[in-house]
Amino acid sequence: MKEKPLILVTNDDGIFAPGIAALVEVAKTFGEVIVVAPNSPQSAKGHAITIHDPLRIKQVQIWENVLSWECSGTPVDCVKLAKHVILKGRPIDLCVSGINHGSNSSINIIYSGTMSAAMEGSIEGILSVGFSLCDYAFSADFMAAKHYVSKVISFMLKNEFKLQKTRLLNVNIPNLPLEQIKGMRICRQAEARWIEEFVEQKDPRGQSYFWLTGKFINLDNGHDTDEKALTEGYVSIVPSMHDLTHYAAMQEVKQFDIENQ
Amino acid sequence: MKEKPLILVTNDDGIFAPGIAALVEVAKTFGEVIVVAPNSPQSAKGHAITIHDPLRIKQVQIWENVLSWECSGTPVDCVKLAKHVILKGRPIDLCVSGINHGSNSSINIIYSGTMSAAMEGSIEGILSVGFSLCDYAFSADFMAAKHYVSKVISFMLKNEFKLQKTRLLNVNIPNLPLEQIKGMRICRQAEARWIEEFVEQKDPRGQSYFWLTGKFINLDNGHDTDEKALTEGYVSIVPSMHDLTHYAAMQEVKQFDIENQ
Repeated sequence: MKEKPLILVTNDDGIFAPGIAALVEVAKTFGEVIVVAPNSPQSAKGHAITIHDPLRIKQVQIWENVLSWECSGTPVDCVKLAKHVILKGRPIDLCVSGINHGSNSSINIIYSGTMSAAMEGSIEGILSVGFSLCDYAFSADFMAAKHYVSKVISFMLKNEFKLQKTRLLNVNIPNLPLEQIKGMRICRQAEARWIEEFVEQKDPRGQSYFWLTGKFINLDNGHDTDEKALTEGYVSIVPSMHDLTHYAAMQEVKQFDIENQ
Repeated sequence: MKEKPLILVTNDDGIFAPGIAALVEVAKTFGEVIVVAPNSPQSAKGHAITIHDPLRIKQVQIWENVLSWECSGTPVDCVKLAKHVILKGRPIDLCVSGINHGSNSSINIIYSGTMSAAMEGSIEGILSVGFSLCDYAFSADFMAAKHYVSKVISFMLKNEFKLQKTRLLNVNIPNLPLEQIKGMRICRQAEARWIEEFVEQKDPRGQSYFWLTGKFINLDNGHDTDEKALTEGYVSIVPSMHDLTHYAAMQEVKQFDIENQ
């Protein structure tokens, strides 16, 4: 491990969320920490980037010995601005995002700003990890989460030059006291999804509007999934990537004469 | 093929973009078309969903015999609202998104609202296709694109019940006259990326702001990629998915004693 690795911290709940404070606290024990995070909540922003509006950054003082900026954009914008504008290309050893207030397991990786920020780091070639605690509450207890965040950061930094394929981890921590968490498990993403419901309401002018809500259901009975690990009291670690090619479907489609249908 | 399949049309450039008009025109020749699309441009919104704001939909009359709604949300919101609120669970045979003004090949799938809308369809179990023309101009000529959109829609509808693995296609059409396009090629997503640049400007109060811009570079020399197909004058078709697990990295991480680092 380098003596003083450079660690970029971001999130999607905004720079004043308790989760990012917990992450900064742990990251500081490993090296130099730079924070670039949204100035407002950016949950569920997926891999959105800001191209139709200008982006603003403002240096803020929140944590001792940690240079920090708040940004008007999305989590992915934060990573891009950190790399190119703030750090001006200085090599980043690790990009960590979170600790998210709420799970980003299974299909949630697609919608998650936390994971998209980490994925953006990995696209840039930086070792990256998104951390989420399975508790949506603002008052969530990050004590157990910090224990495992520390273990994962240590693993990534120690093996920075050994990991050939691993660039991105999706880490979810069950909402349990530390002594009830059984350890960490390397998993695949469960094939779970949301069953949406829309709540219809009327504004004072009598016009309808809708709130998106829904129920998470796990359709995947596999024993090697992140959902299974979390249910059994383990921290789930899903090595993830940005190649969305479905190779088996590629072979399937090739069997048809697609030109002449 | 069903006699009158139900086809949901959406996009990310907004309901008044020429690209969606071209897509509606082709889709109408195959069955009943319902349009639910954003009321403003939503490019680069990735898989964002709207959870902090209420969503509004408004029925509009744009195309003859096509029921259409504009929506205040993201492309993914449009698909969810179409399924649950507008169609109230009535089965959709095909979800098509686009025709996007500009390429969504390789890494662009991650940032693209067009592809995220199609992916949302596929997550819901609906056969889905995102179409993009490699021309960003508002005045782009969709003539050749329509020819291939028709072929792909025909393929998907004819084989609706034969395709076991294929749920999502990312289709990009080169910016060439029809007679210069050599055909369609089934490909994988190229490992290409953006090299970002930020343009810094000052507002009248002397405060800095930044515009995100960048240059697309293809780092992938493979002959089986979407970038290669497009460069050689083919329509690229990448069967895609939402499982982001990196299975090879899973095996790599398992070789370490991650608990004791």
